[in-house]
Amino acid sequence: MASEVVDEMRVYLAGPDIFLPEAGALAERKRKLCADYGFAGLSPLDNEISLEGLSRHEAALRIGAANEDMIRSCQLVIANLTPFRGPSADVGTAYEMGFARALGLPVFGYTNVAGTLLDRTRQALGAGVTREPTGRYADAYHMAVEDFDCIDNLMLVIAVEGSGSHIVVSPTAEDSRFTDLAGFEACLKLAAQQRDAAARREGTRET
Amino acid sequence: MASEVVDEMRVYLAGPDIFLPEAGALAERKRKLCADYGFAGLSPLDNEISLEGLSRHEAALRIGAANEDMIRSCQLVIANLTPFRGPSADVGTAYEMGFARALGLPVFGYTNVAGTLLDRTRQALGAGVTREPTGRYADAYHMAVEDFDCIDNLMLVIAVEGSGSHIVVSPTAEDSRFTDLAGFEACLKLAAQQRDAAARREGTRET
Repeated sequence: MASEVVDEMRVYLAGPDIFLPEAGALAERKRKLCADYGFAGLSPLDNEISLEGLSRHEAALRIGAANEDMIRSCQLVIANLTPFRGPSADVGTAYEMGFARALGLPVFGYTNVAGTLLDRTRQALGAGVTREPTGRYADAYHMAVEDFDCIDNLMLVIAVEGSGSHIVVSPTAEDSRFTDLAGFEACLKLAAQQRDAAARREGTRET
Repeated sequence: MASEVVDEMRVYLAGPDIFLPEAGALAERKRKLCADYGFAGLSPLDNEISLEGLSRHEAALRIGAANEDMIRSCQLVIANLTPFRGPSADVGTAYEMGFARALGLPVFGYTNVAGTLLDRTRQALGAGVTREPTGRYADAYHMAVEDFDCIDNLMLVIAVEGSGSHIVVSPTAEDSRFTDLAGFEACLKLAAQQRDAAARREGTRET
């Protein structure tokens, strides 16, 4: 598979693990795993941009634009959907998934926490979630809690399943919730299978 | 401005207000406001899709795909970024903003809750957020809380500011948090200004 070495597909590494103190080391572990599967991993941390002289708000805009450019330079995304400060994934990650999907990039995703969105919302809100006589689950604002037998909001699910894959659920201990990479590696396997199947189809057409 | 009537721009109405019991009536109010400014508002509720015979999970995928198609059919997005079950916006809304932005659609946004992401995360997590000696704010997982003087995650901010606008902050009372449309209408004004300025530039070029 010499072509894999020559034409490594670039993977955008989306996820809230960028907020960890050891984010740099974790990105390096992800890049190493990507290389094991013939991919090149790109982390938002790899952006070389100068924030000198900028206000915090201006810096945010500069970083955001650089992340968008980086996604445009990639061929696929692997998103860490582990719930972040609530029952759902990180909104920045969700944004990047939508961005990638509209560009036509396949989106892969994993979560290190088990359960459906409904399960986790009930856990998070406790008695705040009630079941109405119709069977509808609602929160204290009477807003429906999605009950679609899905890991998270249905848009995140269509992103991954519409890309021909499924969200990998890889429950871990609490203290490795944001650092365990078994789910990430499972996504790499799925991405490699998809890449290799496409290469075989391409080969069949060419011969 | 006869051209506005003929060529109404289509606005995708993104936001968690779709989860309200009165979502239909609220969407109708939004559509009416859109019409007042010469736009056509489209809500995910307007999708006419059959979910008959589908599992809940299959239904989720069908709805998600229809929402993506609807965004593709629009010329801009107005997103309700009011914090949803945590310090940040709804992840489905964030996804749709990223999707629209990658398609090149201008993204407008409003929130009915004041404060920066840092303010609200500290409110939500209380003593769970600490300030480290370096000045970095972190949660119980030692994950940084973004301190960029922004309303929410920086990707949501670049979506709106990168579209030539700004996130409208329109604080409301708790009980109208998801139904007050002053912020939504302010977005329509910004969108109409942008549309009309573009039309004037176009007119100048043509004459």
